[in-house]
Amino acid sequence: MSRLSRRRLLAGGALTAGGAMAGAAVALARDPDTPTPAEAGPVAHGTQTVPFHGVHQAGIDTPAQAHAAFCAFDLAAGVDRAALGRLMRLLTDDAARLTQGRPALADTEPELAALPARLTVTFGFGPRFFAAAGREALRPESVAPLPAFGIDRLEQRWCGGDLLVQVCADDPLTVTHAQRMLVKDTLAFARPRWTQRGFRRGRGTQDDGVTQRNVMGQLDGTRNPALGSPEFDGAVWVDSGPSWLHGGTTLVVRRIRAEMEKWDAVDTAGKEFAVGRRLDTGAPLSGEHEHDPPDYAATNALGLTVIAEAAHIARAHVDSDRQRIFRRPYNYDEPPGPDGRPDMGLVFAAYQRDVGDQFLPIQRNLAEADLMNDWITPIGSAVFAVPPGCQAGGWIGETLLT
Amino acid sequence: MSRLSRRRLLAGGALTAGGAMAGAAVALARDPDTPTPAEAGPVAHGTQTVPFHGVHQAGIDTPAQAHAAFCAFDLAAGVDRAALGRLMRLLTDDAARLTQGRPALADTEPELAALPARLTVTFGFGPRFFAAAGREALRPESVAPLPAFGIDRLEQRWCGGDLLVQVCADDPLTVTHAQRMLVKDTLAFARPRWTQRGFRRGRGTQDDGVTQRNVMGQLDGTRNPALGSPEFDGAVWVDSGPSWLHGGTTLVVRRIRAEMEKWDAVDTAGKEFAVGRRLDTGAPLSGEHEHDPPDYAATNALGLTVIAEAAHIARAHVDSDRQRIFRRPYNYDEPPGPDGRPDMGLVFAAYQRDVGDQFLPIQRNLAEADLMNDWITPIGSAVFAVPPGCQAGGWIGETLLT
Repeated sequence: MSRLSRRRLLAGGALTAGGAMAGAAVALARDPDTPTPAEAGPVAHGTQTVPFHGVHQAGIDTPAQAHAAFCAFDLAAGVDRAALGRLMRLLTDDAARLTQGRPALADTEPELAALPARLTVTFGFGPRFFAAAGREALRPESVAPLPAFGIDRLEQRWCGGDLLVQVCADDPLTVTHAQRMLVKDTLAFARPRWTQRGFRRGRGTQDDGVTQRNVMGQLDGTRNPALGSPEFDGAVWVDSGPSWLHGGTTLVVRRIRAEMEKWDAVDTAGKEFAVGRRLDTGAPLSGEHEHDPPDYAATNALGLTVIAEAAHIARAHVDSDRQRIFRRPYNYDEPPGPDGRPDMGLVFAAYQRDVGDQFLPIQRNLAEADLMNDWITPIGSAVFAVPPGCQAGGWIGETLLT
Repeated sequence: MSRLSRRRLLAGGALTAGGAMAGAAVALARDPDTPTPAEAGPVAHGTQTVPFHGVHQAGIDTPAQAHAAFCAFDLAAGVDRAALGRLMRLLTDDAARLTQGRPALADTEPELAALPARLTVTFGFGPRFFAAAGREALRPESVAPLPAFGIDRLEQRWCGGDLLVQVCADDPLTVTHAQRMLVKDTLAFARPRWTQRGFRRGRGTQDDGVTQRNVMGQLDGTRNPALGSPEFDGAVWVDSGPSWLHGGTTLVVRRIRAEMEKWDAVDTAGKEFAVGRRLDTGAPLSGEHEHDPPDYAATNALGLTVIAEAAHIARAHVDSDRQRIFRRPYNYDEPPGPDGRPDMGLVFAAYQRDVGDQFLPIQRNLAEADLMNDWITPIGSAVFAVPPGCQAGGWIGETLLT
């Protein structure tokens, strides 16, 4: 990918992006000084980079990397606009370095910076960031704690946060190193509040662009807008309201525990009825293939809809592309308890222009009647404004803080 | 790898193994029904398998996969030899299935079994397993809690265990699924005691066979015996003593916290002096390249040895190949504390014929004077006998329990 522009990579959505990534590897293999692919096998992808600078921050329309750390921080008392400017300059500078395979400015393990493995670093500002910056008037109204839902069992240790640093890469040690360097940058200004590590399929386990399964075995993300498509751009990038956020977006992070033991007790037909899709192929119960549009009006011999009204996909459905959200979730898996009870689920991360117009109506629909509610429990919740990208010499947050 | 025998893959050590893995991917790409590599890019490796049955258990001489879970269990009161036989038959059967890409017998998410990604499952028996089995006389003497070392700061939550299940694969979701199916198998017989997840470089981040770095930035494993070499076989596989363990080995699992903040305070020269190797290349301070044999007698202009007597590699050095250990470690990285303090290090896993003859003398040398002791702290410790492999129709542990 280092020889391809991010724009070109993203043109045409996730499947094309997958092809472009594969193409980059092959192009590297054709360097006359290296063996041919038949002799060398697949080319190592650890040196691949994603551009840091751009209209948007990377790590949103970037094909999801295999590993992520979501790191939320509380600002220290007295941190004001000037201090936040210093913090964001520092973080931007180190993020720009690390994502391009260069050590952080004060890197103590510079050798670990050499394999960025498509590292991206994405910053978000939580509700209290704005008051600290003296910019409360510029806070999007829905960048605030979400309203309580009846299905929530929130644990404060997974909620809130003034600043978010999302670190993603195809290599887990790269995530570890980048995260630590960036945490060190924050310590004069803030303290870690929560950190959630997550994973998707290892890079190369499946072909790029294939929809992935979550810990419950479901294909997860079939209906996502395709990266770089007009639907994606219209749903994700802010294009109205206060200009500081234009080209930015908002992010909802929910920690959703999977109630695996209860899920295990349901048979396949029951699971498919709850989801509205087949577990093996991901096809909607009204269709044959994963990407067939669900037909919510289709009925069976009894006159009942094939996809139940309370099925997950029916409750999550929205009519307008502008109301969609872009899901970029990661799985988590913590050690089981002494009783063997699993502690696993989803670090659900959704990007959208406006939380109030997009995420909230969907979440209200789901909380009201989603059949899946018996098997998933939100235990964490946080909302962030994600500023636009910056050019070389600029820094993330400059449109809000200067 | 599914088209290559494990024997062939391992012939000639890790570097050859890497080449063989790459070769397998290319071979798959040449299937006449699939596009050529130039069109398709690297072939997804999620369907690759490692044979389960054999003289030895897999997951030891298998080129280390990217992800691992070490799961220790306490046996329930009253679990006797007959019950242990039932447990090990159940575990063996599901391990054999899952590693070959087939669902566990009572798999509740069979779709997650389809991508084994070189999954291996390796079983070990802790000290109290033998008494429960009425086989105390067959317990190797050094399969017992390690003696206390002055450098230890052991936390009981990371120590001991009657049964170990080591789950390794190149894909983290595969590890999650296999681990959960196997934990479920144990629940009528045992309870989880501790679970440690760890990672190495993501598959394909670097070329196969390249020595990896740990969280401290050091190249880790340069002096490991090469997989499948006579040195490896002589150091790892039990070939004397009670016959039930012939073809097996023993495993020491230590959780070693890296004192990153103290390590950060040392300059490069100080770090290299403590290790005895250069941080960038991994070359011994007496040589130029990573794999140059260290010259412990070489002196500098002042007449001092170039590699300090208390340097890590000098203290860990053994003269005889039979006394070496085989390290198969994984990194861990837990969320930082509210003060930003890192919680990371190594799930150190070492295989050897005999803990008393091999691991213990090395560990005594290190505990006595290793300069690295300022920056690493053992916080967990466990020892297991690892039975030999089994053939189809057999089960792991049958040589002890029948």
